[in-house]
Amino acid sequence: MLHIHNTLTKRKEPFKPLDSRIVKFYVCGPTVYDKTHIGHAKTYVAFDVMRRYLEFLGYNVLYIVNITDIEDKIIMKSLKTGKEWHQIADENIVDFFNATDKLNIKRAHIYPRVSEHIEDIIKFIEKLIEKGYAYEAEGNVYFSVDSFSDYGKLSNITREQLKTFEEGSGKRKPYDFALWKKAKPNEPYWNSPWGPGRPGWHIECSVMSSKYLGSQFDIHGGGEDLIFPHHENEIAQSEAYFETKPWVKYWIHTGMLIMGKDKMSKSIGNVITVEELTSKYDPMEIRYYLISGHYRSQLVFSEESLKHAKAAYNRILNAISNLNQIKEEIYGKYKATDKALKTFYEIIKLRNELIEAMDDDFNTPIALAKLHELTSLVNKEILKSPEPLTVLAALKAYEEASEIFGLFEKEFRKGEGREEQLISSLINLILAIRQKYRRRKEWSTADWIASELRKMGIELSDMKDKTLWRIKL
Amino acid sequence: MLHIHNTLTKRKEPFKPLDSRIVKFYVCGPTVYDKTHIGHAKTYVAFDVMRRYLEFLGYNVLYIVNITDIEDKIIMKSLKTGKEWHQIADENIVDFFNATDKLNIKRAHIYPRVSEHIEDIIKFIEKLIEKGYAYEAEGNVYFSVDSFSDYGKLSNITREQLKTFEEGSGKRKPYDFALWKKAKPNEPYWNSPWGPGRPGWHIECSVMSSKYLGSQFDIHGGGEDLIFPHHENEIAQSEAYFETKPWVKYWIHTGMLIMGKDKMSKSIGNVITVEELTSKYDPMEIRYYLISGHYRSQLVFSEESLKHAKAAYNRILNAISNLNQIKEEIYGKYKATDKALKTFYEIIKLRNELIEAMDDDFNTPIALAKLHELTSLVNKEILKSPEPLTVLAALKAYEEASEIFGLFEKEFRKGEGREEQLISSLINLILAIRQKYRRRKEWSTADWIASELRKMGIELSDMKDKTLWRIKL
Repeated sequence: MLHIHNTLTKRKEPFKPLDSRIVKFYVCGPTVYDKTHIGHAKTYVAFDVMRRYLEFLGYNVLYIVNITDIEDKIIMKSLKTGKEWHQIADENIVDFFNATDKLNIKRAHIYPRVSEHIEDIIKFIEKLIEKGYAYEAEGNVYFSVDSFSDYGKLSNITREQLKTFEEGSGKRKPYDFALWKKAKPNEPYWNSPWGPGRPGWHIECSVMSSKYLGSQFDIHGGGEDLIFPHHENEIAQSEAYFETKPWVKYWIHTGMLIMGKDKMSKSIGNVITVEELTSKYDPMEIRYYLISGHYRSQLVFSEESLKHAKAAYNRILNAISNLNQIKEEIYGKYKATDKALKTFYEIIKLRNELIEAMDDDFNTPIALAKLHELTSLVNKEILKSPEPLTVLAALKAYEEASEIFGLFEKEFRKGEGREEQLISSLINLILAIRQKYRRRKEWSTADWIASELRKMGIELSDMKDKTLWRIKL
Repeated sequence: MLHIHNTLTKRKEPFKPLDSRIVKFYVCGPTVYDKTHIGHAKTYVAFDVMRRYLEFLGYNVLYIVNITDIEDKIIMKSLKTGKEWHQIADENIVDFFNATDKLNIKRAHIYPRVSEHIEDIIKFIEKLIEKGYAYEAEGNVYFSVDSFSDYGKLSNITREQLKTFEEGSGKRKPYDFALWKKAKPNEPYWNSPWGPGRPGWHIECSVMSSKYLGSQFDIHGGGEDLIFPHHENEIAQSEAYFETKPWVKYWIHTGMLIMGKDKMSKSIGNVITVEELTSKYDPMEIRYYLISGHYRSQLVFSEESLKHAKAAYNRILNAISNLNQIKEEIYGKYKATDKALKTFYEIIKLRNELIEAMDDDFNTPIALAKLHELTSLVNKEILKSPEPLTVLAALKAYEEASEIFGLFEKEFRKGEGREEQLISSLINLILAIRQKYRRRKEWSTADWIASELRKMGIELSDMKDKTLWRIKL
C-alpha cells in the first residue's frame, strides 16, 4: 500500500484519497517571468512521477498546475524591457511547455492562469472580508493572520517569529499578508471593489485549486521553499473560507536543486535552463538524473553527477533495446529450462521490490536500483541464453517501469518496428535513385534530393561507393 | 475486487491467487493438425483478455499454453498425406502463431510441446502406477478411475453415466482412460517401460502444467468442451500424483463458437480459418467481435453480426483517432468550463463502471458498452467543444481500455505521429522524383520505383496529374 510523507503531519501516512477512486492533485506551477530552468524541472518531474504512479495503481487522477502570469517579477521585467506583461508571460509559457514536453512530463488536465481567474479571486476575497478574516486598507486587502487560530500548522512558524516581519502600507499587523494589491502607476491592473489593483500571490492558489477541485482535496504539492509563507497562507485563506479541515489531506514538498551553495534561482543568477541542457543531453538522461535522488532530498547539480546518470540511464536503455532486438528470434523453443524458471522468479522479485519502493513515499532511487539489478540479470543471464520466458518477463518489467518513471517509452512505442523498417526501406530506395543521378552526373537533382531529405531531418554522408544516412530527431 | 466464475464450485468467487502477487495461469492450447480457426481464436482471445486484465490489476502473470503435437488426428493426417507427423505439427504451429499474432494475442511465456516432454510424462506415469492409481495392460497404461474417489467433481458426471463407456483393449473398467498408448504399426512412437508407444491426451496437461507451475496453481482454462473428460481426467491424475487439493484453484471455461447448429470444428467441417477471415476483415474487428459476448457464452457466428461488430469497433476507433488529431490543438486554454468539469466526472464514472464490469467475471460486453457510452459522450460533447481536461481524460480512459482489451493499440503506439509523418514525406519525395521520370517518358524507371514501393506494401494509383498512394499493412 502506498505511503506518502505528509508535510502537514510530518510523517509517512497510508494514502487514502477522499473518494476511493479519484485523486485530486494540485501542484504550484511556474511564475512565467523567465525560462524554465532545471530547478523547476526537478519539481515538475517529481510530481509527474507521482501522478504516473497513482495512475499505475489504478486511480483516476485530476491533475492541475497553475500558471502565475501576473506578479511582481513579471511586472518588473515588463518595466525593464518595455514588453507588455502578458507578452512576457506568453513567451515563457511556450518555453515552459517546450521544456516539460521535452522532459516527457504529462500534460496537466488544467493549467489555470491567474489573469483569467480575476473575477473568481475578487469574489473569494469579498467573502473573506465579509467573514471577518480580511480587511481593506488604502486600496489593498490584507488577510488578518490573528483571525485564523490554526496559523502555522504546516510550517510550524511561531507567533514570536511572525512578529519580526516588516510593516506594510496600512497593515494592522506586520505579518498580515496581501490578498489584493493596489496598482502603482504604470502597473497592470483590474478593477475591484477596492479600486484598481491585482491579486496577491497566495490567494490565486486557494481560489483556482478549489474552483476545480472543490472545498477539500487530496494532494497539494510544490517545492519546499513554498511551505512558508505560500502554503501556510493558502491554508489560512482556504480553511477560513470553506471551514473544512483539513482543506488539503496530503501536502507534498520536493527538495530544491542546489547549484553551488544556493538553490537554483533566477534571482541568484545560478541558472541552467532546460533549453540549454537539452541541447547537450538527451532529455531522458536529464529526466533520469532528476529522479535519481529521492524527491524530498535536495539535488546538488554537477556535470559529473549528470554524466553518471547519463551512463546509468543508457545502461538500462541498452538492455531494453537488446531484449527488443532478440524478441522475435527467441521463439521456436517449446520448453523452458529450470534455470530460466528460476530467473523468471528473480525478475518478478525485483519487479515487486520496485513497486514496494514506490509504495514507500515514491522512493525512486531504490526503485531505479532495482531496475539496475534487473539490468545486471539481463546482461549476465538472460541475453546469454535467451528464452521466451525470461525475455518476455524482463520486457514486461521494463515496460511497467517505463510507464511509472516516464522513461524508455520510445522503446515500447515503436509500433513493433514496422514504421522504422518502412522508413529505412524508403530512404534506401531514395538513395538508390539518387545514385542513378550521381552516376549520370546529374548533380543538381542529386543535391536537390539530399536537401529534401535534410528538411525531413535526414543527414547524408556520401562515401566513395555508398551513402550513409542518419535521422536527427 | 475481481470475481471469477469457477467451474469447480459452479459459482463466482473472489479472486485470491495462492501467492498474492503472482498468478499462475495454464490454458489448454491447440492440437496442431490443421489451421487455426475462429473457434480456436474465440478461446485464445478470451484468455488473452483475462491475462491482460490481471496484468492491468498489477499481478505478475506466468502464462502457459501447451501445444499438442502428437495425437490421433495428427497421426491420421500423416497417414493420409504421407507427411511426417512433426512436419504437419510444425506447419500448423506457424499458422497458429501467425493467427494469434494477427489477433494481437500476447505471446505466452512458455508453449510446451508434448513431443519435447515425453520423458517427464513417462516419469509421471511410473509414479501413478507405483501409487496404485494406474496399471499396465498389453503395452498400454490406464488410469483406474475407481481408485480416485473424487472423480467427477468438475463435470458432475456420475458413476452411472460412466458405466455406459465402451471397453478398450485391456481396460479393467470401460471408463478407465489411457495414460500411455501402445504404438500401432506405422505410428510414431517413443520407447517406454511399457514398450514403444506415445502418451494419451490427458496426461500431457497434468505433466507440463505442474512442471512449470508446481503442484498447485491458480487458473486452468480451456474451452467448455474440455470439462469432460479432459479436465476431469487431469484433476484425477494430478491430485492422485501430488495429493494437493485442489490442484487448481480456479477452473475457467469458455463458450464455444457455433457455426450453423454445431460448434465450429474441423471434424464437422464447418470451419472458417483465421487466415481466411483476416483477409476480409481487419484482425482488430475480428478480435472485437470475439469479445463482444461474454466469454462463458456461446457465440453464434454470422457475417451479419461480424459486420455489426466491425461498425461498432470502427465507431470507437474513429472517436480515438479524432481525439488524437485534436490533442495538440486544444492547448492555449487556461481555464476549464463547468461543463467540461462535469463531463470529466462522467468520463471517470464510465471508466470506473468499465472496471467494475471486468471485475465481475471479465464481463466484456458490459465493459464494451461503457466504452460506447464514452464514445457517445466524445461525439456529442467533447469533440464539439474540446478542452484539455476532457480530451486528456477521454484519451486516458481509451488507453486503459486498449491495454485491457488489446484493441486500438496502434492509436496509442504511433510514436506521437513522427514516424507516420516521416513516412508520408518520404513517399511524397519518391513520387515527385518518379514524376520527373514520367515526364521524361522514362517508363521503365518509373515502373521500377512503383514495383519497389509495392514490395514495401505501398500501392500507387496513377491519376491524370497526380499519384495517390496507400499503405497496405
